[in-house]
Amino acid sequence: MPVSFTLVRKDSACSARLGLLHTPHGTVETPIFMPVGTQATVKTMTPEEVRDVGGRLILSNTYHLYLRPGHELVREAGGLHRFMNWSGPILTDSGGFQVFSLGPLRRVSEEGVTFRSHIDGSEHFFSPEKAMEVQLALGSDIAMAFDECAPYPCSREYALEALERTTRWARRSAAAHQSETQGLFGIVQGGTFPDLREKSARELVELDFPGYAIGGLSVGEPKQIMYEMLDHTVEFLPEDKPRYLMGVGSPDCLVEGVVRGIDMFDCVLPTRIARNGSVFTRQGKLVVRNAEYARDFSPLDPTCDCYTCRNYSRAYIRHLIKAGEVLGIRLTTIHNLRFVLNLMEEIKEALRQGEIMEFRDRFLSTYQAV
Amino acid sequence: MPVSFTLVRKDSACSARLGLLHTPHGTVETPIFMPVGTQATVKTMTPEEVRDVGGRLILSNTYHLYLRPGHELVREAGGLHRFMNWSGPILTDSGGFQVFSLGPLRRVSEEGVTFRSHIDGSEHFFSPEKAMEVQLALGSDIAMAFDECAPYPCSREYALEALERTTRWARRSAAAHQSETQGLFGIVQGGTFPDLREKSARELVELDFPGYAIGGLSVGEPKQIMYEMLDHTVEFLPEDKPRYLMGVGSPDCLVEGVVRGIDMFDCVLPTRIARNGSVFTRQGKLVVRNAEYARDFSPLDPTCDCYTCRNYSRAYIRHLIKAGEVLGIRLTTIHNLRFVLNLMEEIKEALRQGEIMEFRDRFLSTYQAV
Ligand SMILES: [Zn+2]
Ligand SMILES: [Zn+2]
Repeated sequence: MPVSFTLVRKDSACSARLGLLHTPHGTVETPIFMPVGTQATVKTMTPEEVRDVGGRLILSNTYHLYLRPGHELVREAGGLHRFMNWSGPILTDSGGFQVFSLGPLRRVSEEGVTFRSHIDGSEHFFSPEKAMEVQLALGSDIAMAFDECAPYPCSREYALEALERTTRWARRSAAAHQSETQGLFGIVQGGTFPDLREKSARELVELDFPGYAIGGLSVGEPKQIMYEMLDHTVEFLPEDKPRYLMGVGSPDCLVEGVVRGIDMFDCVLPTRIARNGSVFTRQGKLVVRNAEYARDFSPLDPTCDCYTCRNYSRAYIRHLIKAGEVLGIRLTTIHNLRFVLNLMEEIKEALRQGEIMEFRDRFLSTYQAV
Repeated sequence: MPVSFTLVRKDSACSARLGLLHTPHGTVETPIFMPVGTQATVKTMTPEEVRDVGGRLILSNTYHLYLRPGHELVREAGGLHRFMNWSGPILTDSGGFQVFSLGPLRRVSEEGVTFRSHIDGSEHFFSPEKAMEVQLALGSDIAMAFDECAPYPCSREYALEALERTTRWARRSAAAHQSETQGLFGIVQGGTFPDLREKSARELVELDFPGYAIGGLSVGEPKQIMYEMLDHTVEFLPEDKPRYLMGVGSPDCLVEGVVRGIDMFDCVLPTRIARNGSVFTRQGKLVVRNAEYARDFSPLDPTCDCYTCRNYSRAYIRHLIKAGEVLGIRLTTIHNLRFVLNLMEEIKEALRQGEIMEFRDRFLSTYQAV
């Protein structure tokens, strides 16, 4: 089996666990946050910098790479690892989330999704089989089944239809996925309906994937609803398989997700807000481009050990961002990713000490979530 | 004396020389190329990266830093070195070139130049005294006298007027410049008129600066004219002072400049063309964003030892640039700066071996200049 999971320790007070995820490009500790490298690069960073801030497993986007530079070109380059010079494991999404987000640019049938490229308007077709073909060409360690992500809010009928199609497509994905070197995860859907979440989870577990993602959350619903849905999903997933909450990356949600039994996360949030001049601190988000930091010669977060905080002031970073200098968003990106990855390290340490609930309370008592 | 020069070796076949430039932030070998950090950052790079590619002395722009973030803020930050985290020497220009380039946005009088900010249209006044005040606040190792750079082409009358004003302003710059920690260089003008170049050089040498720049070249004139003007200027400059050719950085011009007795160069060319997807190779310029490199899995220049060429293909870099990814222009910038700085290292080695003319011929026989 190319991808497997070792459950190392279960917390006694909650659903949190420590684990090891084994992949063809090495083993990583869980819980883990995966930096996103949409277009075969974690925006603004070199692979060495991603590793330096603690990145071990990255996510890349099938939809984007399929359109540009094209999966066949990546295959010719020797696969995504070699193309982008990243030697650690890579997870690719299925492209489903992106093509469903295209709105009027896509048409759904049982067979698959016809869509127009956001780059040049050209027409394309994605199906479970195509998503497998593309991800195999990319050569990721973990591929995702092709799914339909229902929007929020949506009707029960729509959510049911989407989850049933997701199950059928998961079956087709598994049938098409013939690889000795790549693991394939299924994706649980079901909107914000507890019984549909249960139904989706049970149907997917029958297909016996080496890991399960929870999709269709973090799409605009209140955090409390997301947490409830996690509870209604995780309990139906096997203990000995990794659980991946897609699209989640705000610090408070990472902590809450771990407590609810999640092992893997990905999100563009840390890198995206960095490019808008916003950074995480232990007190919450700080907009360093604001005028109040013009003469603030202290680091972004005095408790942070990152390259940015060791060497630069808020005043300098604000200057760079106001002046449109690339180094500014490089420095905020490094800091934000380090912040999130350091948080994951602290979470793992709290789990090892059997103090994850205490850690959660302490973290949330100072962290001002938005 | 905060800044001084040691002439280490003169070539027997041409005017080239090896030297040591001593500054408050250390000694650097000459001939030297200075990467440009216009807004307190060498575009896209960290200071460590600049050092890794061989950068030892960088140039920053007084006009830009005066407007944003403001020289007083930089002074409060502890000076430019600390603000931008660069521990090596820094040379600042005087702002003269930039304010004269503003065209209709500026008004010149004997007292100085009134101009409008390119950022917000606000009105400002620069004079020799102001240029000294701003550069002292920035805390650079080498400041430049405030000069008037005549455009190309221009009439003899205009060139004469500009050079005479430049001399008067150089005298005022020297009078206003009271610093134990910063050296002040004069700037030779005189357009493309040999006798005016001589006049300007002689007048400035009388003021006994610790170094002399050659301004008003590389402003659009044919290269052959620039080379002639160098010959007509260098011969009137003292041997024991460094000579700095402003705004020159194309590989062929660097080689030709050294042969004509130049010790220092600066130019945005390597970093600017990098951001447009063009790179230097030993054969000449290569536009890596062109379609012909889409499936070219070889490095930018197989003879280059830079981080980019050791780890990435033309195909990957082209993909990044086409996709608008910051890493693309980071990689081309690293390569182009390394190319130029490596060239300077080869030039110094050729000078040590007494083979600079042979090196020039060999380099120019394969390098296709544009
Ligand atoms: Zn930091
Ligand atoms: Zn290179």
